[in-house]
Amino acid sequence: MKVALVQLNYRIGDFASNAEKIISAILRAREEGAELAVFSELAASGYYPEDLLEKKEFILQAEETIREIACHCTGIGALVGGPAINDGERGKQLYNAAFYLENGKVRDIFYKSLLPTYDVFDEYRHFEPNRFFHLLHLNKSRAAITICEDLWDEQPVYSEFGKNKLYLTSPLEELEVLEPEMIINLSASPFSANQESFRKDILIKKAAKAGIPLVYVNQVGAQAELIFDGGSVFINAKGEIIHELNYFEEDFRVIDTENPGKPDLQPTFTRMEKIHNALILGIRDYFRKTGFSKATLGLSGGIDSAVVAVLAVRALGAGNIRVLLLPSAYSTPHSVEDALQLAEKLGIRYDIIPIAESVDAVNTALSPLFAYLPADVTEENIQARIRGVLIMALSNKFNHLVLNTSNKSECAVGYGTLYGDMNGGISVLGDLYKTEVYHLAELINAREEIIPLHTITKPPSAELRPGQKDSDTLPEYPVLDKILFHYIELNQSPEEIASLGLESALVAKVIRMVNMNEYKRFQAPPILRISSKSFGSGRKMPLVAKF
Amino acid sequence: MKVALVQLNYRIGDFASNAEKIISAILRAREEGAELAVFSELAASGYYPEDLLEKKEFILQAEETIREIACHCTGIGALVGGPAINDGERGKQLYNAAFYLENGKVRDIFYKSLLPTYDVFDEYRHFEPNRFFHLLHLNKSRAAITICEDLWDEQPVYSEFGKNKLYLTSPLEELEVLEPEMIINLSASPFSANQESFRKDILIKKAAKAGIPLVYVNQVGAQAELIFDGGSVFINAKGEIIHELNYFEEDFRVIDTENPGKPDLQPTFTRMEKIHNALILGIRDYFRKTGFSKATLGLSGGIDSAVVAVLAVRALGAGNIRVLLLPSAYSTPHSVEDALQLAEKLGIRYDIIPIAESVDAVNTALSPLFAYLPADVTEENIQARIRGVLIMALSNKFNHLVLNTSNKSECAVGYGTLYGDMNGGISVLGDLYKTEVYHLAELINAREEIIPLHTITKPPSAELRPGQKDSDTLPEYPVLDKILFHYIELNQSPEEIASLGLESALVAKVIRMVNMNEYKRFQAPPILRISSKSFGSGRKMPLVAKF
Repeated sequence: MKVALVQLNYRIGDFASNAEKIISAILRAREEGAELAVFSELAASGYYPEDLLEKKEFILQAEETIREIACHCTGIGALVGGPAINDGERGKQLYNAAFYLENGKVRDIFYKSLLPTYDVFDEYRHFEPNRFFHLLHLNKSRAAITICEDLWDEQPVYSEFGKNKLYLTSPLEELEVLEPEMIINLSASPFSANQESFRKDILIKKAAKAGIPLVYVNQVGAQAELIFDGGSVFINAKGEIIHELNYFEEDFRVIDTENPGKPDLQPTFTRMEKIHNALILGIRDYFRKTGFSKATLGLSGGIDSAVVAVLAVRALGAGNIRVLLLPSAYSTPHSVEDALQLAEKLGIRYDIIPIAESVDAVNTALSPLFAYLPADVTEENIQARIRGVLIMALSNKFNHLVLNTSNKSECAVGYGTLYGDMNGGISVLGDLYKTEVYHLAELINAREEIIPLHTITKPPSAELRPGQKDSDTLPEYPVLDKILFHYIELNQSPEEIASLGLESALVAKVIRMVNMNEYKRFQAPPILRISSKSFGSGRKMPLVAKF
Repeated sequence: MKVALVQLNYRIGDFASNAEKIISAILRAREEGAELAVFSELAASGYYPEDLLEKKEFILQAEETIREIACHCTGIGALVGGPAINDGERGKQLYNAAFYLENGKVRDIFYKSLLPTYDVFDEYRHFEPNRFFHLLHLNKSRAAITICEDLWDEQPVYSEFGKNKLYLTSPLEELEVLEPEMIINLSASPFSANQESFRKDILIKKAAKAGIPLVYVNQVGAQAELIFDGGSVFINAKGEIIHELNYFEEDFRVIDTENPGKPDLQPTFTRMEKIHNALILGIRDYFRKTGFSKATLGLSGGIDSAVVAVLAVRALGAGNIRVLLLPSAYSTPHSVEDALQLAEKLGIRYDIIPIAESVDAVNTALSPLFAYLPADVTEENIQARIRGVLIMALSNKFNHLVLNTSNKSECAVGYGTLYGDMNGGISVLGDLYKTEVYHLAELINAREEIIPLHTITKPPSAELRPGQKDSDTLPEYPVLDKILFHYIELNQSPEEIASLGLESALVAKVIRMVNMNEYKRFQAPPILRISSKSFGSGRKMPLVAKF
């Protein structure tokens, strides 16, 4: 049968716009001869609405949206994700559902069985899991309808004890008893740099094991920290991917499940190319969905702000970016030159505002309190915070959203000033270790030197005191990042990390810095997530722990 | 039988200190003739460790702690909460468990059945629920062991659809089949102003319905935003509270379940007295558990900072509080006088730092960019942010933790400057509406005028432009707070709120302000929670929604 895979970018709670997109895709699918159009998980509301799901009004509008879409389903069926009310006497108020729409009505409904509650997921907060299974009976086929995690029953748990499986049941095994001829999966599976191949492996395995084809439709588009990458697929009964939709863009394709033709796949990208594309989508959607068009940031001459500026230009256009160069008494001349060179290369508007006089005024105001005390990190923070005041003033006056330029290594060890360089509406690089920022800069410069070479080759420095270098306070980044990766991504103990050939005292020091700085990260902007363990909603640590 | 109710204040992950406290309570209980000592939920680790539960090392230390405590259980049994490894092949790695320790060993173990995942709770993230029930067989009694939420099976769901019950099963009904003679509940039930009476009602109902006595031990102490109030109880078979332990303090009492004697209860406190005591504990524990002893804040002469200063003095002592008076060109003379009068009354150290010159320096630096543009909220924010820079400088130089003074009404509508007056390590009043801040000020002044009367009676103003009043931008607080309460606490729709007799356009405007300012709250400090719906982990809203 002919099935349309519809991969769209939804805005959470924008029912009118989501419905319009869904309806026009249904009409197009019918025109192209499809008998069924498949959409992603919670398409009607956008994934994930969080506690908006606790608002009655929100649920009623979601239901109304499904009914409105159903009115356009004549001569074609559609599977559309959305929240459904639990009519039972017990359990959570809602199910995470797939509605089958046909002849102007909701003809059938399927509930999600496996509700993820790890990492960035929190679905058990709002949804009751499905416990009863049935197939979708179409004219030409019987389909097993599953929603995202329902196919992930075999994944191991996220911890080191774990040889066991996370879930008690396998929805697909329950459904296989009913003899389906096809599997359909409605998903909202967020991007991380290794997730795509992991995901494909699981889907291939499921189709091959069941010996029936699999239609998989994923959400695309960024929702604040989470970036959904699309990449919807059709997999045949042998477990071969025959159709693959675009990544990081909306896409639409009608396929014939019996005669899917020759493989029509996407080009292969490197890990860093995927991250690059993910971040651009992340910036673009954060602006579009919060109603901003223009961005500002401080350009220091260093690598982090340089990379952010390039990504911002690619996401929003050079005409929408305006940067500030904010040299202090300790800024080296080459920093200003490097920043200027990049701004000119990118063709973005820049202004130079020296901060010395503002910093002096603050120091003078404080001198009765600080007299005779030696300068320390306090004075360094004052500089970073004055820069923050100036960038925020530009943002307030001209309605620019501030892009934060902190990287994951800094966020991890607290090497940044709260209310200073940690400011911003969204953090672009907060999930990239410093060594990864260098790799991204190399990718950006691969065809042409966009970021000045000097920015990449000079030793990293915050330039908050004369001759300062990051390595005065921190280990060299390759060492630091290795410790951080094993501690944060892999949850390893100090002993395990030291056994990789690292000095125990250094490992202990770095881990202490990570733990001591939970309070700073608590107040950090949302971070575009590109790894399997980003700071943000996927890593919840107590603020008052001693461990 | 003689049972010790042990109500302690734990530090998360501080196994050595938690074990020491637990062991000395066991020894004391044995001395006082108790046969059983009962501790609160997750006592060994402190409640709630969040993603520390994903660290193998953390779990191994928790297990080791339980074994160490068991070594001291000779001549007495103890029920101690802690995480337990799930040895099965499927499901989450851990159970939320109660260990029964006797004769130096773990003799029995009980798992929590109902795992809350609403509001501030997220236990399904880490724990597998119990599905099999058995009793604890003591020498003189058979006890049904339950953990916190296990007794809350009948609570309605948190939404407006909800006539139905949240949970599919009732652990106590399962256990009653086994004919227990006593119910024991290990809890970590966070305070909110109405929670205590709600909780007592549930416990009384459970004991009366089962017709057997109930021993209930709650955690006490604050863990960042969450404040646990203690108030452990013994309820007899008729459903009468006979013993009640202290609120907001550690406590210990040995009772005889067969001859509990005459009722020995705590004095009754008003709602605002409870909030007052909760906030003091919240401040004190945040400092103690993060290793700070000294606090600073900006004293404006307004009511919010005045109330915070009083609470800080009561929590930490006047000698540990140091405030800054930061007048601007727009500060009225009476503001400085009011602030001075309070500082002198409280006996706290204060310094006056006029901000005009620092603000002028920033404005001058920006003048090439802002020339000819009229002053707007940008210039107001610059003042608030310069104050932020000065307070943070004091904090950095002298190792003071900054107390945030924003109230819930401001947080809700975004009437505050991000990186300015929204700064701080912990927000003291962020869960009190402005009208509640006035009530708290009245309570503080009930016996003696501590806060200058003028601070309470003058119209609220941010004093960021000449003659500014809050009511220029916002509705009067009684109206604003009514709208906010119905929208935030009760999740009502604009139509429902307007039907209370409020102007539709005003309701819509306020709700729009609440929704538009999610991004500011995302970066706010942790807020001491005293209501049933606080900004923070209990209210998760998408940043990019349109609704």
